[in-house]
Formats: sequence, structure tokens, C-alpha cells
Amino acid sequence: MKAHCTATYRIYDDRADFASKAEGIAVGMTVGSWTELPEAQKADMAKHLGQVLSVVPVESDIPGERYADITIAYPDVNYSRDLPALLVTMFGKLSMDGRIRLMDIEWSDAFKQAFPGPKFGLDGVRKLVDVHDRPLLMSIFKSVIGYDLPALAEQFRQQALGGVHIIKDDEILFENPLTPIERRVKACIETADAVSEQTGRKLLYAVNLTGPTFKLRDQALRAIEAGANAFLFNVLAYGFDVLHALSSDPDISVPIAAHPAMAGSMYPSPHHGIAAQLLLGKLMRLAGADLVLFPSPYGSVTMPAEDTFAIRDALTRQDMALQRSFPVPSAGIHPGIVPLIIRDFGTDVIVNAGGGIHGHPLGTAAGGRAFVQAIDAVMQGKTLESCAADQEELRAAIQAWGVKQ
Amino acid sequence: MKAHCTATYRIYDDRADFASKAEGIAVGMTVGSWTELPEAQKADMAKHLGQVLSVVPVESDIPGERYADITIAYPDVNYSRDLPALLVTMFGKLSMDGRIRLMDIEWSDAFKQAFPGPKFGLDGVRKLVDVHDRPLLMSIFKSVIGYDLPALAEQFRQQALGGVHIIKDDEILFENPLTPIERRVKACIETADAVSEQTGRKLLYAVNLTGPTFKLRDQALRAIEAGANAFLFNVLAYGFDVLHALSSDPDISVPIAAHPAMAGSMYPSPHHGIAAQLLLGKLMRLAGADLVLFPSPYGSVTMPAEDTFAIRDALTRQDMALQRSFPVPSAGIHPGIVPLIIRDFGTDVIVNAGGGIHGHPLGTAAGGRAFVQAIDAVMQGKTLESCAADQEELRAAIQAWGVKQ
Repeated sequence: MKAHCTATYRIYDDRADFASKAEGIAVGMTVGSWTELPEAQKADMAKHLGQVLSVVPVESDIPGERYADITIAYPDVNYSRDLPALLVTMFGKLSMDGRIRLMDIEWSDAFKQAFPGPKFGLDGVRKLVDVHDRPLLMSIFKSVIGYDLPALAEQFRQQALGGVHIIKDDEILFENPLTPIERRVKACIETADAVSEQTGRKLLYAVNLTGPTFKLRDQALRAIEAGANAFLFNVLAYGFDVLHALSSDPDISVPIAAHPAMAGSMYPSPHHGIAAQLLLGKLMRLAGADLVLFPSPYGSVTMPAEDTFAIRDALTRQDMALQRSFPVPSAGIHPGIVPLIIRDFGTDVIVNAGGGIHGHPLGTAAGGRAFVQAIDAVMQGKTLESCAADQEELRAAIQAWGVKQ
Repeated sequence: MKAHCTATYRIYDDRADFASKAEGIAVGMTVGSWTELPEAQKADMAKHLGQVLSVVPVESDIPGERYADITIAYPDVNYSRDLPALLVTMFGKLSMDGRIRLMDIEWSDAFKQAFPGPKFGLDGVRKLVDVHDRPLLMSIFKSVIGYDLPALAEQFRQQALGGVHIIKDDEILFENPLTPIERRVKACIETADAVSEQTGRKLLYAVNLTGPTFKLRDQALRAIEAGANAFLFNVLAYGFDVLHALSSDPDISVPIAAHPAMAGSMYPSPHHGIAAQLLLGKLMRLAGADLVLFPSPYGSVTMPAEDTFAIRDALTRQDMALQRSFPVPSAGIHPGIVPLIIRDFGTDVIVNAGGGIHGHPLGTAAGGRAFVQAIDAVMQGKTLESCAADQEELRAAIQAWGVKQ
């Protein structure tokens, strides 16, 4: 069993000898110096020494731009079993050392054992809403800053009536006098229960967990006491370790949806930062996100399609130790996109819409129904156009936004 | 008194109408929609609406590259008084929306009031070491992974004998069986006391505060109980809010040195991320860092000089509400750099060296003395060369590394 975690970097340099640069990292980020150590000390220090596993020079498409993908093994004995320690070891000082990007991490089994991962995961969330064979549908509150509780609850009701499985807060809705979290949870869950009585469908409400870090746990427990059955969490504003702490807490007995807010400060540059599949894929899953939102390849807030697929794979690939996280490609989603989502992401995906629901010509509830009809159509192997003939909501959606090929 | 915080973005776009893009942000990141609101609702929502304060198109040096600096006012009523809420409001979703960089934030007085800032600050740290009229000298442990307590204490003693004011842990030294934090603090503080008895100098030891977020406070209190008189903290691995919580905690009665580990995942790209002066300057000071390390403009881990000066200004400019943070330009520092540091940063700076102390030809203690001699020389208006004649340690340092002009 390997006793190290590995980091893969992409390093750009016009002139460097990449092999010796890799050696410099392996030594510099672990024992500090090696060749000048006395032989007796080398024996003690060998177990702490980083190792270069591979150096792969890559021809760039851009003339004159040289880079290499370099993989270094960092002995587990050098860091404690937490993500701040691992990330500072691998990309603390090094993040500032020229044009360098952290592409991937592989954790050792020993490191991973400290991380139970998603408490519910994809399968657990399916059980909670009792939907097993098709994509789930999630809707996002339209901006509700300045709304009072009755207005918020009415918007919730319209979304619930549309047939969604999960309704999530806007990520910029924080503690405020009009709709504080406990009263917001009560109002929305009461509404959810009332609608469920009519429809027989189960519904999750991902309420935004916000405020001071050291009060998050108490806030979560109070929200659960008030009836909360899911959380939204701006992970990157707090750090992966806080997500890990919340998700692994036995008293926080509801799924957590990770919002990617602030991720764009780290993943988009080709020369710096942290690759999207690591930031929003692997790290989110290890830290225990049950659902992970990330930019879809379809909207205006876009991410290259191959990056979104790499995130999907990181969240859902077979892993004996970690449950799968539910991929939630977000932004720019309307019913005419549903065939593409299922083509690209399969049925283990959450179709998540805001404007594509609230902006429906016949209103929010009709907007939800149009999505349900679109998902029905694809699951039955039919085209949206063929189903639109006798489904008014889907027809109106297609007239408004078209069907994307 | 203004009731909003402002964010300034640099937005790159080949074709966009920057004024309408700014309007889109001001509305989209606050009330969500505006023109379509009924007039009655507009009256209620006006206090939540973001405002475009300025749009300044800038001619880029790069042909075909267009950008604008856009400043938006976000009403305080929209977010709670914490940095996660403010940052998610200003740069949550927006960070992922194309080529956009967060350049600056100005906080309202009301927002700022929630932040006491540095508990000691530059002047308080000076009082602790009783040095008031010259730069302080800090040394960094050479990599001590795999060292036991006697070896660590001996390295501490050599640094202390050299005349430094502050000794800081390596940022990659985490909890480990050989040198756990409480025993490490005891061993180093005992050594510091023994050396102080000989020299009469006061000495701070910035021990690395690490591990799970929700245990940091307890760990800090245990370390203080064991004698800790300063902390090192990898702020960006935990989030600014955690620094704020620790620094504003009355029981954490020692200064905190902020390490910039991982900052390079956010500041270096011109098109994305967060400007260095904001990330390592303004935000660190608001969140309460007493000392802030950042890449010097002199070494191999470099930052453009103008960015380091912008950090210096952000940490030290006059502010009625916040104490100054001590700037600590780091990496590539040897005694021959001291005249440049003082020219560029003034005397309210900490001269911080690792290799430039431990790598001295006559050893670690001599390495410290060479720095003290270099600082003496500059403070007396003399050249290093003129003082080196009768100062062996300084002479050896200059022979090894030269004097940088």
C-alpha cells in the first residue's frame, strides 16, 4: 500500500531543465536539502523525501511555449490527515513559483481513510426523493434579496408545484432580518409539505448555510431542528476542511450541495491555479459534497466541455471508499438543453435551472413542468418536438428558447 | 456615511459594451432583475440595488485586447458582516464569468466595524520585542521535517544567538509525533529564554497553527498555555474568516503572522483571480494579521515590484480604524539585499531570511549577525562594504552573495 499522496503539476518555462526542476520540488517541498546531508542523516530522512514519479514534457500549441507535466510523491508521514496540510504541502509556496498549475492529486489509502466522503452521495439523495431511474430536477430561487417570508414561500410553492425534486437558495442570500434561516426553513418546509400532500412527491430544500465559520455547525443544527433537509454551502469561501467537518459530523444528517462561488478565482487560467476537475471534482467529493454545482458547457457562464466532463468523472467514477457525488452542471439550462445534458452527463445528473424555470412564458410552475416533460421525453427516447405537440408547457418553452442540438 | 462596499473589477472582453456589462453586474449580483419589476416593488427594492460607480475603459498594451475597470457599489443591507458573505456577493458567481479579475474592495464604515483588525499590529509587535526605530529581523526554520525536539531546539538556539527578533516555523511543519505543537513551543520558548538571559533581547517564536479548522482555537489556547508568544497561520488554506475569528478572539493574546501559502493559485494571472494587494494586503489586514508575508521582489519566487509596494501600502497606509500590519517581503533575502529592502519598504518592515541565514559560510548564528550588521550599517547611513571591513560575518555574507544594487 503506497504511503504517499501524489501531485501533478503543469510547469511552464522557456528554458528550464524540467527533470532538475522536478527534483528541486521533490526535495525542496519535503526535507529541504538532500545532497549535502551527512550519510547517517540521510538514513533517517529518506522516509520524508519526496520522489519524482514522472516528468512528461509536452509540446504546446503556442509557439515558444514549453511546459511539462510533473508528478511528485509526497510521503504521508510529512503531513497531518487534513486538506489544509496536504494542500499547503503540495501547493503552498509552490503556487507562487512562476507559471505552475496544480492539475491533479492522488491520495494514498491511509490519507483517504480520514475522509468518509459524501454522507448521502448520489444514491442517498435519490433515496431521499425516491427517484431512481432518471435525472433529478432542481430549481434555484430567483434573486430573493429584499423578499419577506410570505413572498419567499410563494416563490417556493410555485417551484414545488412545477415538479422539481430540490429547490435551492440563491447563494447570495445571507442571514437577514426578513428571512432568517430558521424561519425561512420553517416557511419553505411547511410549503413543501403542503405541496407534497397534493403531489405525493418528496422535496428537498437546500438552505444556504452562511456566516462566521465557527458558528456554522450550530447554525446547521438549528436549521435541522427547524426542519432543514438539505444545505447549500459556498465551500470555497470557507475552505474544503470546513465542508469535510460539516459533512462528516454525524449530527448534520442532511445532504450538502456545494456551490462553486469563487472557484473562478482559481481554475480558469491555463498557467496558474488549480484544475477544475480537482477543485470542483475530486476535492469536493473527498470533502463530502453530496451534490456539486459547476458551470455547464451550455450557458454564458461557461467552462470548456472537456473540463465539465472531467468534473463529472471525478465526482462519479468507481471508488470503493467514497460514494459518488451528484453532478449539477449549472447556468444556461432551459428545457431545450435537456437532451444534451443527458447525452453528455447520462441520467445520473441533476438538471438545475433558474431563469429556465422562472422565465417560462407561462410562469414558474409551468417552467418546472416543461422540464419534467422534457426529461420524460428523453427518457422515453422521444424528441422534444414530438412531445411538445400535446404538452403545452414544453411547447411554450421550445417556442421561447428552442431546442439545442 | 456610505452604506455600501464597493468592488472594482478588471473585465476583458473583445466586443462588450462595458457600460451595459457593468449595469448587468450591478443588477444581477443584487436584486436579480430591475427593469421588469412593478413600480411598487421598485420602491421596496431600491435599497438593495447595486450601483455602477464608474466604468473606465483602458487601452491595453496588447493589440486587440480590450478591458475596462468597473466599480460597483453593493448595499450593505444585502450581506451579513463577514468576509465569506462579502466575497461571495462580489466575486462568487462572477469569478466564473469570463475574463474578470477582482482588483480592489472598499468597505463601508459599517462593514468595517465588525473587524477589529490586527490585535497588535506593527506597533504592538515592536513593543513586544522592544525595538522601535529599525527593521525587525526574522528567521525561518530550515526544513525541520523529521527532526526531533533536541535537534529542533538546537536550530532554534543558533537562530536566536544570531540576534533575530522573531523565529518562525516552516509553514509545512504540521502536527507530528516528533515535535507536537505544545512540546515544540516548550522546547523553543525555553531555549529563547535561555538565550535572552545572555543577550537581553526579547524573542518571538511564531509556531505553525495547523490541523482541522474547528480545532484551531483549542490548539491555539493549548499552545499559549505552553508558552507560545506568536503564531504562524496558512490563512488561505482556511479562509479569511478563520483568521478574523482567531485574531479577534480575546483569549488568543499573541500576534499572528499570515503566511501566503496557496496565494499563487489566485493572484498571478492578469485575467483572473484576485489582485495581490487585495488578497495579501487589504484582506489580510482587515482580517487581523499582525505580520503578513508575501513574495519579495528580489528572489526567485518573485512578484512584480509594483505589486509588492501595493501590498506594503495596503498593510501600512493611515487608517483610523485598523492598526498597521507589518510587511514581511520574503524569499531571496540575504544581507546584501538589506539596503534595497529599506529603500523600497522603509524601516517599518521585517527582514525575513531562511537560506540567507542558515546558508551563511560561518553558520546560522553568524548568518543572523551578518543581517544585524547590515541593518546597523544602513541605519547609520553607511554602505555595507564600508562596514564589512571590520565585521567578519557581514564580510563573509558579502563574499558569498554580494551586495545587490
